[in-house]
Amino acid sequence: MKTTLGEIAAFLGARLQGDAECVIEGVAELKSATPSSLSFLANPKYAPLLASSQAGALLVGEKDAAKAAGKNLIVSPNPYRDFARVVAQYFDKREHPQGLHPTASVHPTAKVAPSASLGAFCVVEAGASVGERSVLYAFSYAGPNSKIGADCLIYPYASLMENCLLGDRVILQPGAVIGADGFGFAPDPPQGYVKIPQIGNVVVEDDVEIQANACVDRGALGSTVVGKGSKLDNFVHIAHNVKIGRHSVFAAQAGISGSTVVGNWVTFAGQSAAGGHLNIGDQAIITGQAGAGKDVPAKAMVSGSPAQPTLEHHRGLAELNKLPELKRRVKELERRLAELENKGGA
Amino acid sequence: MKTTLGEIAAFLGARLQGDAECVIEGVAELKSATPSSLSFLANPKYAPLLASSQAGALLVGEKDAAKAAGKNLIVSPNPYRDFARVVAQYFDKREHPQGLHPTASVHPTAKVAPSASLGAFCVVEAGASVGERSVLYAFSYAGPNSKIGADCLIYPYASLMENCLLGDRVILQPGAVIGADGFGFAPDPPQGYVKIPQIGNVVVEDDVEIQANACVDRGALGSTVVGKGSKLDNFVHIAHNVKIGRHSVFAAQAGISGSTVVGNWVTFAGQSAAGGHLNIGDQAIITGQAGAGKDVPAKAMVSGSPAQPTLEHHRGLAELNKLPELKRRVKELERRLAELENKGGA
Amino acid sequence: MKTTLGEIAAFLGARLQGDAECVIEGVAELKSATPSSLSFLANPKYAPLLASSQAGALLVGEKDAAKAAGKNLIVSPNPYRDFARVVAQYFDKREHPQGLHPTASVHPTAKVAPSASLGAFCVVEAGASVGERSVLYAFSYAGPNSKIGADCLIYPYASLMENCLLGDRVILQPGAVIGADGFGFAPDPPQGYVKIPQIGNVVVEDDVEIQANACVDRGALGSTVVGKGSKLDNFVHIAHNVKIGRHSVFAAQAGISGSTVVGNWVTFAGQSAAGGHLNIGDQAIITGQAGAGKDVPAKAMVSGSPAQPTLEHHRGLAELNKLPELKRRVKELERRLAELENKGGA
Repeated sequence: MKTTLGEIAAFLGARLQGDAECVIEGVAELKSATPSSLSFLANPKYAPLLASSQAGALLVGEKDAAKAAGKNLIVSPNPYRDFARVVAQYFDKREHPQGLHPTASVHPTAKVAPSASLGAFCVVEAGASVGERSVLYAFSYAGPNSKIGADCLIYPYASLMENCLLGDRVILQPGAVIGADGFGFAPDPPQGYVKIPQIGNVVVEDDVEIQANACVDRGALGSTVVGKGSKLDNFVHIAHNVKIGRHSVFAAQAGISGSTVVGNWVTFAGQSAAGGHLNIGDQAIITGQAGAGKDVPAKAMVSGSPAQPTLEHHRGLAELNKLPELKRRVKELERRLAELENKGGA
Repeated sequence: MKTTLGEIAAFLGARLQGDAECVIEGVAELKSATPSSLSFLANPKYAPLLASSQAGALLVGEKDAAKAAGKNLIVSPNPYRDFARVVAQYFDKREHPQGLHPTASVHPTAKVAPSASLGAFCVVEAGASVGERSVLYAFSYAGPNSKIGADCLIYPYASLMENCLLGDRVILQPGAVIGADGFGFAPDPPQGYVKIPQIGNVVVEDDVEIQANACVDRGALGSTVVGKGSKLDNFVHIAHNVKIGRHSVFAAQAGISGSTVVGNWVTFAGQSAAGGHLNIGDQAIITGQAGAGKDVPAKAMVSGSPAQPTLEHHRGLAELNKLPELKRRVKELERRLAELENKGGA
Repeated sequence: MKTTLGEIAAFLGARLQGDAECVIEGVAELKSATPSSLSFLANPKYAPLLASSQAGALLVGEKDAAKAAGKNLIVSPNPYRDFARVVAQYFDKREHPQGLHPTASVHPTAKVAPSASLGAFCVVEAGASVGERSVLYAFSYAGPNSKIGADCLIYPYASLMENCLLGDRVILQPGAVIGADGFGFAPDPPQGYVKIPQIGNVVVEDDVEIQANACVDRGALGSTVVGKGSKLDNFVHIAHNVKIGRHSVFAAQAGISGSTVVGNWVTFAGQSAAGGHLNIGDQAIITGQAGAGKDVPAKAMVSGSPAQPTLEHHRGLAELNKLPELKRRVKELERRLAELENKGGA
């Protein structure tokens, strides 16, 4: 795809500074960009690369425009978002499967929209439905009475189990499992455990993306819910009956235990966790490897295992590192006190 | 399914208190229950919901029966277990695939019991066997010379690799991998590593459930064993040559390193871990995110990374939070001592 | 397979001590070995088992040869490596699928080498290529324009997504996902997030093994790289644009965040992690459950979350355990000082 900087600026409705005729043939990181690439600056860590970048043009925020004076710039209120829009519009060449592959297995009672596509060896079970323009890659699975909305993208080995529902524009990356049984077993010693049948389902709302090999378990009773626009990275574990609000993000290997309620715009960083039956407030941040063992208030940032407010956690760690000094001070006190006692006693 | 409270009490052999004719059409959580639902109380956290619940009847323990006086009750010595039994008997409507799907691929030397069912695109390789009444969903895989017992349930994308064995009533949730190679590589610098062929297998005993995307690696030599009745949640990692006893539970994202021996009725909480070549005693509890770096005695509860007895770990964390106070006391001592020294020196 | 100790010693080019005619029919651990087994000693923890082992012969290092005097021995400079070589040469009986299974789905524009093998329901998409002698098990997936080198082994449900590349002798265990989208979303409140199209790919170099259900995400722009000879255990997460050097190992459930650069011969232990945009130097060791939040120098060993040098981390934990003692000392100082103050004031 070949375009010009002027065309891109017009598409974005953003301010152009420099040569509107500059030809753009691709996008690249600052380091590897060439004179025909558009690059961008969103992470300030990479600002020092601006000067030496060979990029033909740069997409930057208002406050970075000055640093890049002399370059061809598109100045945006949200350069990262606008870079995403440019890539999607001009440079994302991925072609998804089209049409119905002859090996796909569709039950006679399933409903597949005429504009949907099914790859090789897809399975759509009895009573399932697939919405308009949705694409199911090879080996994807829509269980009995499951429902896939419109414009969804289901990659290989992703599974939507019985009765589970996807909204519109949902993306399931390879190996994502939606609606496997939750981990419910009633102890009955000494014989063992009695399995709690998991008769609920999973409801995934619009615009959710669930990445590779992540799992959202079905409710024991009622639904496990992933709210509109939330994003789950690889290996994220969402246990049965969890309710997730809108636009919350879960980085890789995070895990949420059963029946916990997660608000809107919450961030779980990598390998973090929350115990069961908790409330995690809106906009809370659980930092990497932290483990929330009790409720987290809205807008709080917590760290450590068990998690506490991040500032307290860091102060504790800093104190720990200064313990040898404190011990020296106590030892010195003991020495001086003994001296004084001796003197007094003499 | 429609039944009466009297019928349910008779099925359970449990005491009925209230209206035996009360019609029950479903099961539900306390909060969402209706007058035709049976609900239950097992977690004391939810006791305050008893009063306001609209449930037509409740399954409760002896000591909670008084709190729910005036309601229709079934009183049970183990309400959680009995709730599971009721759901399984009356309300679990899931229908598994039946018969042999024409697209299933079964090797001529494989043995599939006449009452077993195979979904679309199942693969049963040479020399493999599938027992009576076992159900293999679409896309499940039984490797060469593997053996699946009777009454097993194998969900999509679950794989049983070469020579691995499942007992009876084993459940593999979607994406579970039984018998992939263990992580064995002999360093041979500077060229790299020499792979240790993993020529052992996995033995999964009766009544085990292994949930979505969990992995149990095959032995390097000999077997990796998951003992009767043990339960593995999503993403649990069991390395080569681990031996797990009976009725042990592993919550999501727990990981056990190679050759470790885990006893009976052990609990590994979420994201916990054990190092390699360790012994974890019967009924031990490894709490969430803890990492056992040495043997854990029977009935011990350990926390932290590296793990230590939970009480010590909590005491340590409490002390850490009180360090600023200790520092203030030391500072105050220094001030008073200096004053005294000055006085003495004066 | 039946052979003699003499033949094995000759194959290895290693020193034989004892009966060259000793017949060896298998390999086994020290504990379970029989008079027709070859066993080995690599982990000193198992040295006490040498005396009682029934093994017909032992493969040991130079310094352990004395301890095993009187036994039939092969003495090797690297007994673990040489044991691996013996197993691979004589006792690894696994048979991989051979030929093209009639149900495999190969796009007309794909190129599959004549000596490659494809199992049941394999999918090789448009423009993909599979090299000589590579084996794709049932249900494996080679996406559009992907490339699999020679002598690769791709197990069930392993996927190589669009445009991704495998070198030679690469092994993908079941469920490994190479080239799913990275976790890139630009916040655009209050509407939600805009997905950053992930238009890069993954390059996996020669001799890499990626184990069960592990994920390596494709670059947002440019490539995610796994360098020659590196090994990834089950559930390892490699985020977009990470660059991994040669011969680095990642134990189960380790996770590396986006754009981080990992050197050569680095070790990430189980459940460890590194944040994004970091440098992890050659031969660094990140211990179990540690979380590197900043760069790690070459050859450093780090522990804890956030990670610090292992020695400092252990010292901190030791101090924590001695805090009650320090508190007693401060209390005692307070008592003695008050006594002294009283005396002075009296």
